[in-house]
Amino acid sequence: MKADIFDMVSPLDYRYYGRNSDAFGKLKDYLSENAMIKYMAKVEAALTTTLSEMGLCSKKIAREVEQAAGKVTAEEVYKEEDRIKHNVRALANSIRKRVSKEAKPYVHFTSTSHDIICSAEAARFKDAMEKVIVPACVELEKTLIEIALREKRTLQIGRTHGQHAEPITFGFTMAEYVDRFGNRILAMKKAASELRGKLSGAVGAYNASSLFFKNPYEFEKKVLSKLGIKPAMHSTQVAEPEFMADLLHSVVSAFGVLANLADDMRHLQRSEIAEVGEAFGKQQVGSSTMPHKRNPINFENVKSMFKAFMPKMITAYLDQISEHQRDLTNSASQRFNAELLVAFYVSVRRLKKVLDNLVVDRRNLQKNFDMSSSLIVAEPLYILLAAHGHPDAHEHVRRLAQSAREQNKPLEELIAKDASLKKYLAKMTAAQRKVLTDPQLYIGRAVQTTERVCRHWKKTLRI
Amino acid sequence: MKADIFDMVSPLDYRYYGRNSDAFGKLKDYLSENAMIKYMAKVEAALTTTLSEMGLCSKKIAREVEQAAGKVTAEEVYKEEDRIKHNVRALANSIRKRVSKEAKPYVHFTSTSHDIICSAEAARFKDAMEKVIVPACVELEKTLIEIALREKRTLQIGRTHGQHAEPITFGFTMAEYVDRFGNRILAMKKAASELRGKLSGAVGAYNASSLFFKNPYEFEKKVLSKLGIKPAMHSTQVAEPEFMADLLHSVVSAFGVLANLADDMRHLQRSEIAEVGEAFGKQQVGSSTMPHKRNPINFENVKSMFKAFMPKMITAYLDQISEHQRDLTNSASQRFNAELLVAFYVSVRRLKKVLDNLVVDRRNLQKNFDMSSSLIVAEPLYILLAAHGHPDAHEHVRRLAQSAREQNKPLEELIAKDASLKKYLAKMTAAQRKVLTDPQLYIGRAVQTTERVCRHWKKTLRI
Amino acid sequence: MKADIFDMVSPLDYRYYGRNSDAFGKLKDYLSENAMIKYMAKVEAALTTTLSEMGLCSKKIAREVEQAAGKVTAEEVYKEEDRIKHNVRALANSIRKRVSKEAKPYVHFTSTSHDIICSAEAARFKDAMEKVIVPACVELEKTLIEIALREKRTLQIGRTHGQHAEPITFGFTMAEYVDRFGNRILAMKKAASELRGKLSGAVGAYNASSLFFKNPYEFEKKVLSKLGIKPAMHSTQVAEPEFMADLLHSVVSAFGVLANLADDMRHLQRSEIAEVGEAFGKQQVGSSTMPHKRNPINFENVKSMFKAFMPKMITAYLDQISEHQRDLTNSASQRFNAELLVAFYVSVRRLKKVLDNLVVDRRNLQKNFDMSSSLIVAEPLYILLAAHGHPDAHEHVRRLAQSAREQNKPLEELIAKDASLKKYLAKMTAAQRKVLTDPQLYIGRAVQTTERVCRHWKKTLRI
Amino acid sequence: MKADIFDMVSPLDYRYYGRNSDAFGKLKDYLSENAMIKYMAKVEAALTTTLSEMGLCSKKIAREVEQAAGKVTAEEVYKEEDRIKHNVRALANSIRKRVSKEAKPYVHFTSTSHDIICSAEAARFKDAMEKVIVPACVELEKTLIEIALREKRTLQIGRTHGQHAEPITFGFTMAEYVDRFGNRILAMKKAASELRGKLSGAVGAYNASSLFFKNPYEFEKKVLSKLGIKPAMHSTQVAEPEFMADLLHSVVSAFGVLANLADDMRHLQRSEIAEVGEAFGKQQVGSSTMPHKRNPINFENVKSMFKAFMPKMITAYLDQISEHQRDLTNSASQRFNAELLVAFYVSVRRLKKVLDNLVVDRRNLQKNFDMSSSLIVAEPLYILLAAHGHPDAHEHVRRLAQSAREQNKPLEELIAKDASLKKYLAKMTAAQRKVLTDPQLYIGRAVQTTERVCRHWKKTLRI
Repeated sequence: MKADIFDMVSPLDYRYYGRNSDAFGKLKDYLSENAMIKYMAKVEAALTTTLSEMGLCSKKIAREVEQAAGKVTAEEVYKEEDRIKHNVRALANSIRKRVSKEAKPYVHFTSTSHDIICSAEAARFKDAMEKVIVPACVELEKTLIEIALREKRTLQIGRTHGQHAEPITFGFTMAEYVDRFGNRILAMKKAASELRGKLSGAVGAYNASSLFFKNPYEFEKKVLSKLGIKPAMHSTQVAEPEFMADLLHSVVSAFGVLANLADDMRHLQRSEIAEVGEAFGKQQVGSSTMPHKRNPINFENVKSMFKAFMPKMITAYLDQISEHQRDLTNSASQRFNAELLVAFYVSVRRLKKVLDNLVVDRRNLQKNFDMSSSLIVAEPLYILLAAHGHPDAHEHVRRLAQSAREQNKPLEELIAKDASLKKYLAKMTAAQRKVLTDPQLYIGRAVQTTERVCRHWKKTLRI
Repeated sequence: MKADIFDMVSPLDYRYYGRNSDAFGKLKDYLSENAMIKYMAKVEAALTTTLSEMGLCSKKIAREVEQAAGKVTAEEVYKEEDRIKHNVRALANSIRKRVSKEAKPYVHFTSTSHDIICSAEAARFKDAMEKVIVPACVELEKTLIEIALREKRTLQIGRTHGQHAEPITFGFTMAEYVDRFGNRILAMKKAASELRGKLSGAVGAYNASSLFFKNPYEFEKKVLSKLGIKPAMHSTQVAEPEFMADLLHSVVSAFGVLANLADDMRHLQRSEIAEVGEAFGKQQVGSSTMPHKRNPINFENVKSMFKAFMPKMITAYLDQISEHQRDLTNSASQRFNAELLVAFYVSVRRLKKVLDNLVVDRRNLQKNFDMSSSLIVAEPLYILLAAHGHPDAHEHVRRLAQSAREQNKPLEELIAKDASLKKYLAKMTAAQRKVLTDPQLYIGRAVQTTERVCRHWKKTLRI
Repeated sequence: MKADIFDMVSPLDYRYYGRNSDAFGKLKDYLSENAMIKYMAKVEAALTTTLSEMGLCSKKIAREVEQAAGKVTAEEVYKEEDRIKHNVRALANSIRKRVSKEAKPYVHFTSTSHDIICSAEAARFKDAMEKVIVPACVELEKTLIEIALREKRTLQIGRTHGQHAEPITFGFTMAEYVDRFGNRILAMKKAASELRGKLSGAVGAYNASSLFFKNPYEFEKKVLSKLGIKPAMHSTQVAEPEFMADLLHSVVSAFGVLANLADDMRHLQRSEIAEVGEAFGKQQVGSSTMPHKRNPINFENVKSMFKAFMPKMITAYLDQISEHQRDLTNSASQRFNAELLVAFYVSVRRLKKVLDNLVVDRRNLQKNFDMSSSLIVAEPLYILLAAHGHPDAHEHVRRLAQSAREQNKPLEELIAKDASLKKYLAKMTAAQRKVLTDPQLYIGRAVQTTERVCRHWKKTLRI
Repeated sequence: MKADIFDMVSPLDYRYYGRNSDAFGKLKDYLSENAMIKYMAKVEAALTTTLSEMGLCSKKIAREVEQAAGKVTAEEVYKEEDRIKHNVRALANSIRKRVSKEAKPYVHFTSTSHDIICSAEAARFKDAMEKVIVPACVELEKTLIEIALREKRTLQIGRTHGQHAEPITFGFTMAEYVDRFGNRILAMKKAASELRGKLSGAVGAYNASSLFFKNPYEFEKKVLSKLGIKPAMHSTQVAEPEFMADLLHSVVSAFGVLANLADDMRHLQRSEIAEVGEAFGKQQVGSSTMPHKRNPINFENVKSMFKAFMPKMITAYLDQISEHQRDLTNSASQRFNAELLVAFYVSVRRLKKVLDNLVVDRRNLQKNFDMSSSLIVAEPLYILLAAHGHPDAHEHVRRLAQSAREQNKPLEELIAKDASLKKYLAKMTAAQRKVLTDPQLYIGRAVQTTERVCRHWKKTLRI
C-alpha cells in the first residue's frame, strides 16, 4: 500500500528514518511492519518444521509451509485482517491458502497468537540490535576512541559548575564517553541476547501442545532456537515483560550517555568558548580559524531525540502489568517500542558523522586554559605546602593569589620570590616543584587514563 | 514521495491513522507534514499581505505571494532542504521562485525561521482541536449522555476496592464520565484558543522589523490574526512554551479520563461480572444472552494508547527549557507533539463507536446486585437506628446481619421480626422505613445527579 | 512523636524543609501531616455545624463538636489508628470521645472517609497555594520585574544555539521570565481556586445523606463553603481527580519556567561568559570585578529540584484512573503530592534570595557584545540593502564582512568606504542608517517590550 | 535534632518508614541522613588508613582519624555546614577537630567532596541492597514458592482479557511471580554489586593525588575495597551515573512485578470472583466462608507505591547528564534516590505479610471454573478433531457447543452421543479422549511448570 510519505504524522517516518537512506536501508528489514510480518511468518515456518522433526507431520509438509511463509506480505495479511478482524489468524490464513489440504492443519498448530507475536518481536529486536544497532554503536565508539587518543595530550581546562577547575586534556574529556558508552554497549548486547520468546499457548500452560507432545518444553525450545532465541522458564499468554524492559533500559541509558556528550559539545561550541565545532568536511579539521555562528544543530538534534524518546521507559514499566494470564492493554503500546530503537540508531549515526569531522580548536583550548592558569597553580601549592608541614597553607596561598591578581603577575613569579616558602619547596620532589612553575603539568593522570580506557575498550570490543 | 506504508515504523502511520479512513481523512490536513508545510506557507502569505496593508509593498505583490504560497508542496520544500540544509529557507525559496523579481524581497521579509514555524504550529494545532478533535469529543460526550440518561434508573451495585458497596444506577456510573470528560472538553477548548504565534524575529526583540515599522507589535498582531491566533506579550526566537504545554496537558488529562472509562468497562465485562459488553451491532442491545468470551479489545486498545502517549508530558516539560534566546534541543522533540493529538483522536473515535453499541446486560446487573442486597440494608439500618437514638446500633446490626447469613434469610425479614427495633422504626419517616424493606431504594440521588449532570453538559456544550 | 530529623529519609524533611525555618514555618500549617489532621478535623466540625444549621442537631452539639475537633492531635489519631486500623474512623473516635453522648451520633454523620479526606486535601492545598505559595511567587515576580526594569537598557548579545545572534538587553532577557512566570502565577491561582471537595458518601450518590436531607446537594455545598471550597457536580467515593491534576500541572509547569531561568543564569555565570554571578551581599551588585570560581549552586539546586519533582505528573495522570466508584490505588500515592508543593516553594524562595543579590557584570556584558559587534551590523545591512533594491545584497554583505575580518577593521568603516552602497544608503531613513554605524542601536524593541511586559504584570498582579 | 514526626511532609517519614519499626530498624543504618554521614566518615577513615598503608603517614595517625570518624554525628556536621556552607568540608572539619595537629593534614588528603559522597553513596546502597533489601526479597520469594507448590494442583480458570480462557492451577498463577521476581532478584544483586565509587579528585584526572602517588589507581582501589566497592575505569568529579541508573532500573522493574502481582490479587478478590482474600490471621487460611467486603488494602497500597515511585527513573535518566567534568544539577535530585529503596522495601515486606496469610478460597475457584467448563472442552475437541483429519472441525464444534448451551447440557454428553465423531475419537490416544470428558484435565503442564520453576529458584537462590 503506497502512501505519500508527507501525509504521515510520525517525524521518524517522514523525516528521520523514512527519508534517511542509511537508517531506512538498514532497519526496515527488522523494525518496519513489513519486517514484523516477515518474522511472524518465520516463526510459523519454524513451528511446522519442528513438527516434522518431531514426527508429527512430513518433511514435505514442513517444506510447503516454509515456502508459503516466505511469500506472505504485510499487504495481504492486513487485507485479510480487515476482513476477519484478527491479525495473527489473518497471517495463518495467508499461509494456509498457499499450502495443500494435508498441510493446512499443521499451520499454527496448537499455538496461540502471542506465541507468534512475542517470539517474532524478540527475534527481530535481537537481530536489529546484534546486526545493526550494536555494530553502529561500536563504530561510534571507534570514533570516540580515535578522538580521545588523538587529543590525549591536548590541554583543556576542566570545568565543574561551568567554572574553570583543574587541568585535563581534551582526550580525557572524550575518554569519559569511551568508557560510559562502552559499558552501555555491553549492557545492550547482554539485554538483546536475553530476549525471550514463547510457545506455551493461550495461558502459558502448554494446554494444547500437551495433547500432542510428551515434552512440550522441548518443542518450544526447538522452535525458538531456529530464531536464535530462548524460552523463559514461565510464560502466560505473553513472554515475561522484564526481558524487554531490560533491553529498553539499556537503550535509553545509552541514549542518555549520547545526550550528555551532545550537551558537552554544544557548550564547548558556545561563541565564548569555541573549543570545538561541527564541521562540513574533513579537510577543515585543525583549521586555524573557526568560522563564527556555526550552530551545533546535530548535537542539538541528539539531545532533542533523547528528550522525545527517554520517557518511553514509563510505558515499558506500565506494560509490565498485565492482569492474570494477560490483558491486552500492552498490545498497542508495545508496537511503539520499535520507534525507540530507530530514534536511537539515527542519533548514533548522526553523532558518528559529526564527530568524524569534529573541529577541535587548539588555539581556543589554550586561550581558555590561560584565562585561569594562574589560579590553577594555587591548588597544588596549597596541597603541597600543607603536606610538607606549612602550618597555615590555605591562608598563605589565598593571600598570594590575591596579590598575583592585584599586581597582574603570574602566581609562579610570586611563589619564586616568597622567601617564606623556600624551606617547603626544598622538601618537595622535583616533579612537585615543576608543577608549581608550569600549570600545564598539573593534569594528573589525564593522558594515562585516556590510554588505559581506550586500550580496555579496543580489546573488549575487538576494535 | 510515495512509500510502502508497511515500511514505516510508526504504528500510527501503518496502522491506527494511515489506514483509518476517518482519522486520515480528518487529520491529515492539520497534523501531517504536508499540513505543516501548508500552514507555514499560509504564514508567509499572511506576512506579505500584511506588508501590503501597511503600505510596505503593493497589493499586487501580496497577491503574487499568496498564490505562490498556495502552490508549494512538501515534496519540493524537502528537496530544496536537501540541497541547502535549511527547512524554512527552503520554503521561502520555493515561494520566491514563483514570484516576480519585485515581489521576491517581500517574501519572509524581516522574519526568522521560527516566526513561521511557531505560528504555523499554533495555528494548525488550534484548527485541529477546534475543527476536528473537540467536535469528536463532543460527539463522544453525546453518546455518554445518551447512555447515562437511558440507564439512569438501571440498578447497579456500586463498587469500591472491587468490592460491592452501596447501590447506584448504571446511568450514574456513566454520569461520572459525562462530567469529567465535559470538564476536559472545556479545558481543551480553552488551551487551544490560547495557543500563541510570534513574529518578533531571531531573538524576539523585533530587531529587523523595527527597522521598518513604527509599531512592530501591530504588524505581528495583524499577521497572526489572519491565522486566527494571537501573539504572546514576550517571545524569544520561539513562542513561550507554556501555552503548548497547557494544551498537551489538557489532552493527556482528557486521555486519562478515557483510560479510566475503558478500565471500568473492561472490568464490567469480566466473565464473572458481565454487566456490559462490546457488541457487533446495535440490534444486540438489551439482548438477554451475553455471548461468552467477547473480548474488550477496544477498551484495551484505548488504555494501551494512553500508556503509550501519556509520558509525552515529560517531553513537554523538558521542552520548556531552552537556553537564552533559544537552543534547538526542542526542535526534533516538538515535531512529535502532533502524534499525541492523532492518538487521542483515534481513541475518542474508537470509544464512541464501541459505546454506541454497548451491550448493557440488565439481568447480570440485577444478579450481581442481588448477591449483596441483604448486606446493603445493613448500612442504612445502622445509620437510621443511630440517628434515632439506638444506644448500640452498630453492634446490633452486625449481629442481625450475621444471623441473616447463617439462616440464609433476607435481612429485611429479620428486621421485621425484631421486637427491640420497633420503637426506632416508629420514629423513622416513611421513606426511611421503605429503604429498609427494599435495598433497591437505597440509591440516594443517583437518578437526580445523573439528570443534573447531563442537563448541565447538554446546555454547556450545546448538545 | 519526636524523632531525630537525621533518621529521616526524605531530603525535604531532614534538609530542605525541616531545617529551613522559612519553609517549615510557613508550610507546616498546611502541608505537614499535623496540618492534614487539623484540616480533617475542620471538615468534621463544619459538617456538624451544618447539621445544626439545617435543624438536624442543636447548636450546642455543633459547638461541642467544633471545640472537640479543635483539640485533636495527629499523635492521638495515629495511636487510635494503630489500634483500629482505620485512619478516618480513628479521627472520628478522637472527636467522639471528647463530646457528650447526645453529640456523638452527629460526628461524621452520614459521611464516608473520603468525604473528609478529599475535602481536607482540597482545602489545605487551596490555602497553601493562596496564602503562602502564590504570594511567594508574586514576591519573586517582583524581583524579576525590578531586575528587568533596572537592566532594561543594559546591552547584551542575544544567543541562539549558544551562539551570538542579535543584540538585546539584559532587562529583555529577564522580561521573558516576568511574562512566563506571570502567566504561571495566574494558572496556579486559577487551578487552586478550582479544587473541589465532596460530601456525597461512599459511592457518590448521597445514599446515606439522602435518608435525612431533602437536598443533600445543599448540605454538601454548605459544609464545603465553610472550608472555602466547592463540590464537583459529580463525585464517586472521591472527588474528580482532574482538578488536582490541573493544580499539579500548573505547579510543575511553573517549576519548568524556574528551571529554564536557573539554566540561563548558570550558563551566563560560566567562566568564559561571566555576565552574572551569585553574590553574597547586596553591596556587591554592579561590582566591577567578578570573583572567579563562584559556583552557581543555587541555580543548580533549583534545576535539580525540578528534575526530582517534575516526573510527579506521571503519578498524577496514573491517579486519574480509579476503578468503578473507586479503588484505593491512589491512596498512598496522593499523600506524596504535598511534597511537590514544598519543593516548589523552597525553590521559589531560593531563587528570590539569589536574584535579589544577583551580580550583573556590565563590563563582561559589553566585552561579550563587542566580540560580535562587527558581525551584528551585517544583518541589518543585508536586510536594508535588499529592501531598498540592491540586486545582490546577501552576497555583497558576505564579502564585505569577510574583508572586515581579514583586515581586522570594523564593518562600519568598510561600509562607509564602499562607493557602490552610497545610493542605497541614501534611500534609507536616518534611523536605519544610524543602526549601520552603531550595532548597539540594533536592539529593536527590547527596551519597550521590557517596559510593556513589566507594566502589564505589575498591574495584573497588583505589585 | 528532634522534630515532631507529624510535622514532616514525606509520607515515608511520618507514616510508612518512620513509624514502621521493621523498616525503620532495618534501613536507618543505610538510608537515613545519619547513615549517609556515617558512611562518608567511613570513606574518610579508609582514605587515611590507606595513606598509612602506602607510607604517607603513620599508623598512629590512621588510627586517630579512624576513631575520630567513628564519633562524628550528622547533627554536628550540619551545624558546621550552617556555618561554612559546605557539607563535605563540614565533615572534614568535624573529624579534624578531634585529631592531633600531625594528623590534621591527612584528613581528606588530596580528595574532593564527591570522592567522599559518591563512594559513600555506592557503599551504603550496596550494603542496603545486599544486607536488607535483597534478603527481604528472597523471603518474599520463599513465600511465593510455598504458595505455588501448595496450590500447584488447585484448579483455576485461566483468564485473558478478563475473560475465562483455558484451565490452569492457582499454583501456576503464582509460579509466574516466582519466576519473574526471581529474575529481578538476580538483576538487583548484579546491579548492587556493580556500584562504583571514586577517588580521582575534582575533575577525575587524579590531579592532586598524582602529586603524591606513583600509582593513584592503586590508591583509589585500596580505599574503595575497604568499603566493599570498586572504582570505575573513568570518572569525572563524580562516578559514572549508569551504574546507579542500572540499580534503580532493577528496583523499579522489580517493583513492577510486585505491582502486577498486587493487581492480580486485587481482581481475584473482587466480590464476584472471590478466589483469594487478605486475611487477618493464619488460622483463617482455607476457611470455607470468605467474609464479604474484605478490602484488598495491602495490595492496593503496593500498587499505589509503585505509581508514586516508578517515575523516579525519569530523574535517574536526567541525572545521567552532567555538563563537562560535572555540574551540580544532580546533587539535590540524587539525595531522593534513597526514598525509592525505602518504598520498595516497605512494599516487599507488606506483600510478604499479606501473602503469608493469603486466603485461597477453593470453593470459589471451583465455582468460577465450572462457569466455563463446558466451553473449555470445545477447544481441545476442535484441535483434536482437526489433527485427526476432521474436514470441518471448527464449524462442527461450534454447532455442538451451541446445542449444548440451548439444551443446557454438558458438552461432554453431546460429544458422546454424536455418531459422526466416533471414528475420530477412535484415533485419539486415551489421554486425549479423557480430556474431552473431563475439562479439569485440560491443564497442560501447569503442575510440572510450577514444580520446575520453584525447583529452579530454590536452587538458584539457595532457599
